[in-house]
Amino acid sequence: MSEVVQKSKLAKQAAQIMGNLTTEQKNAALLLMADSLVSEQQAIIEANAKDLQRGKELGTSASLLDRLALNESRIAAIAEGLRQIAELPDPVGDTLEAFERPNGLRIRKIRVPLGVVGIIYEARPNVTVDAAGLCLKTGNAVVLRGGSSALFSNEKIVEVLHGALSRSAIPADALQLILSANRSSVDEMLKLNGLIDVLIPRGGHSLIQNVVNNASVPVIETGAGVCHTFIDESAQLDMAVRIGINAKAQRPSVCNSMETLLVHEAIAEKHLSAIAEAFKGAHVALKGNERARELVPSMQVAEIEDWKTEYGDYILNIKVVKDLDEALDHIREYGTMHSECIVTEDAANAERFLQEVDAAAVYHNASTRFTDGFEFGFGAEIGISTQKLHARGPMGLPSLTSTKYRVYGSGQIRE
Amino acid sequence: MSEVVQKSKLAKQAAQIMGNLTTEQKNAALLLMADSLVSEQQAIIEANAKDLQRGKELGTSASLLDRLALNESRIAAIAEGLRQIAELPDPVGDTLEAFERPNGLRIRKIRVPLGVVGIIYEARPNVTVDAAGLCLKTGNAVVLRGGSSALFSNEKIVEVLHGALSRSAIPADALQLILSANRSSVDEMLKLNGLIDVLIPRGGHSLIQNVVNNASVPVIETGAGVCHTFIDESAQLDMAVRIGINAKAQRPSVCNSMETLLVHEAIAEKHLSAIAEAFKGAHVALKGNERARELVPSMQVAEIEDWKTEYGDYILNIKVVKDLDEALDHIREYGTMHSECIVTEDAANAERFLQEVDAAAVYHNASTRFTDGFEFGFGAEIGISTQKLHARGPMGLPSLTSTKYRVYGSGQIRE
Repeated sequence: MSEVVQKSKLAKQAAQIMGNLTTEQKNAALLLMADSLVSEQQAIIEANAKDLQRGKELGTSASLLDRLALNESRIAAIAEGLRQIAELPDPVGDTLEAFERPNGLRIRKIRVPLGVVGIIYEARPNVTVDAAGLCLKTGNAVVLRGGSSALFSNEKIVEVLHGALSRSAIPADALQLILSANRSSVDEMLKLNGLIDVLIPRGGHSLIQNVVNNASVPVIETGAGVCHTFIDESAQLDMAVRIGINAKAQRPSVCNSMETLLVHEAIAEKHLSAIAEAFKGAHVALKGNERARELVPSMQVAEIEDWKTEYGDYILNIKVVKDLDEALDHIREYGTMHSECIVTEDAANAERFLQEVDAAAVYHNASTRFTDGFEFGFGAEIGISTQKLHARGPMGLPSLTSTKYRVYGSGQIRE
Repeated sequence: MSEVVQKSKLAKQAAQIMGNLTTEQKNAALLLMADSLVSEQQAIIEANAKDLQRGKELGTSASLLDRLALNESRIAAIAEGLRQIAELPDPVGDTLEAFERPNGLRIRKIRVPLGVVGIIYEARPNVTVDAAGLCLKTGNAVVLRGGSSALFSNEKIVEVLHGALSRSAIPADALQLILSANRSSVDEMLKLNGLIDVLIPRGGHSLIQNVVNNASVPVIETGAGVCHTFIDESAQLDMAVRIGINAKAQRPSVCNSMETLLVHEAIAEKHLSAIAEAFKGAHVALKGNERARELVPSMQVAEIEDWKTEYGDYILNIKVVKDLDEALDHIREYGTMHSECIVTEDAANAERFLQEVDAAAVYHNASTRFTDGFEFGFGAEIGISTQKLHARGPMGLPSLTSTKYRVYGSGQIRE
């Protein structure tokens, strides 16, 4: 039996116990996990140093090494994240519907854990702890398959967490880490129907596409964001620029940042130079369509490929559009249904944009950067779903649950 | 461009319009569809006769031909189904959550259509109308890919429905029927990410498994049911037999019927002969485990394969078990997480069964045959989900929707 099958079977067995734990039992375990991370931080930092050393030898970029690195303050923050998860309401057991049928059957729809959640992710070792905490809080067992670049760190972290779980009501088997770093361990997880109930990929485009395209286990797709901001004719210019700069430059690497600014031509004719200057002041390189370049000739040409690109960097496409319709058409063509914004003082245009744009989150006069579980007040998130099934947008704890109908009868049979 | 791609693109374009229609517009269209089916029933019955003729030539079984056959009363019932869908509440636009953040952002989570729903199904032409009605009511466009055995019927039905839609606010392109009957048209649909938002397979095991195993488009799995009824030590014998006979024999071909009866040994020792007689009286052939056959030697031997089998027929496995734990173990091993029942007068055992059994619907003292959208009071169903993502159990109209966050700001940016 392969490592993946063996560990997934253990997780499935543990899932049976997990579903019957009380909120108090789960919270106590989360707090023990947090304490253990802090008390054993030196061992974790030493393991992390091996990953960093290996990364340097392989020529990993400084920014990736930074994402991989753990130190005392980062471990403290990760542990604090677990304590916050412990404080969140437990959705398991909630009654979502309750009704009685004319034949006397009483039916209750209640939240239950998903069962076994598989997480396939890349470098950052904090995901190991976050995902474990969120899945365990919601009564799930979890099978983690992290990237090889963080393998020493992940292995030590899970060892520490297992130590904590062994002193809790949560069975240690509910948390599994796949150590095999070859691609076939991922391929195997993708097909484990019956042992893994849902897969959540977290990482770059190719990781996510591999999971989406090849999994027979149900998947929650997360990730790609080619987000737009449309500055409408009636927009307040200063608000529009403030929102645009924030959406692009506050943290360009994340999925809810803006890639393309759409500007109504009436605004563009008067103000595109000033808008362009503001972005240049924020170190953003600009590409434009023909009309934009007529107004600001210093921009590079935006090609069709550019409209499709999630730069994740200080680069922005600017397109001058005739009107709201052209903006909507562009978003329909190039958007990834993640987060889209209109800046306008025209209530009818705002309403039309929010109604017609098909995206997880649609904004009127606010930065797309708010599409985030913490910013939405969910207290934590397992990712941002960009699909339409099950969960859409930031996924809080309820996204990690399923439902079950409990039916109470007194001998009813079907006629 | 293939037929599948071409029609899916038309559906996607139509989906944009669909999402903005009012409930009244959609209901008016559904009523026109119903009227047209009745007024053009002769043409439909003639097309259906061609399918029946072809089926006979191919040696199709009488029961399958019966499922395929349309007549005036069946068409009237199908049309009535559309009228009932028109009367159901429209979930699209419902506000599921509304909250304000400390920074003043107002966030509303609202129901929106899924977009384009692909339905892959087999013979019965009523699915063509049901699925179209349910998808259009929920503001979705729909791409139907029915079986070749009903192709003449489906083509005529869709022609009639298109005629009705052309006199309504729903664009005719929102309803697409794939005419290509070869397997490759299914394979193509499975990979149409970006054009089809969700696939719902309806049919036999191999059809569903092909979709689940090979689709990259998100799937809602429906179908297989190996359902159990456990007669606990404290059960009322007459109630237990009544529920068991109903679960097995009221309509054995459907997924919520029972395949295995688990009997507590204390009951079995006294009453298994009487229970077996009752099933035999309902024309049910019995297979048993060793303990059961000691008590009722006339039963055949139940092999491991039998415990896994969805007979869909007048055949029942009977297993005598030591206690509730052994019943739970058996269901965990062989159940398909569809519908499971305990018959007991012991409230603690009932609670434990309902809590621990992992299934879409769990019953205390009622037949598993109630797992059904109509019986649950949903007024209609697109199928019974046997997966844990998005929808579980009978799927009413809300299962055909997604959600969207509308965020209203006044210039908020992220710090």
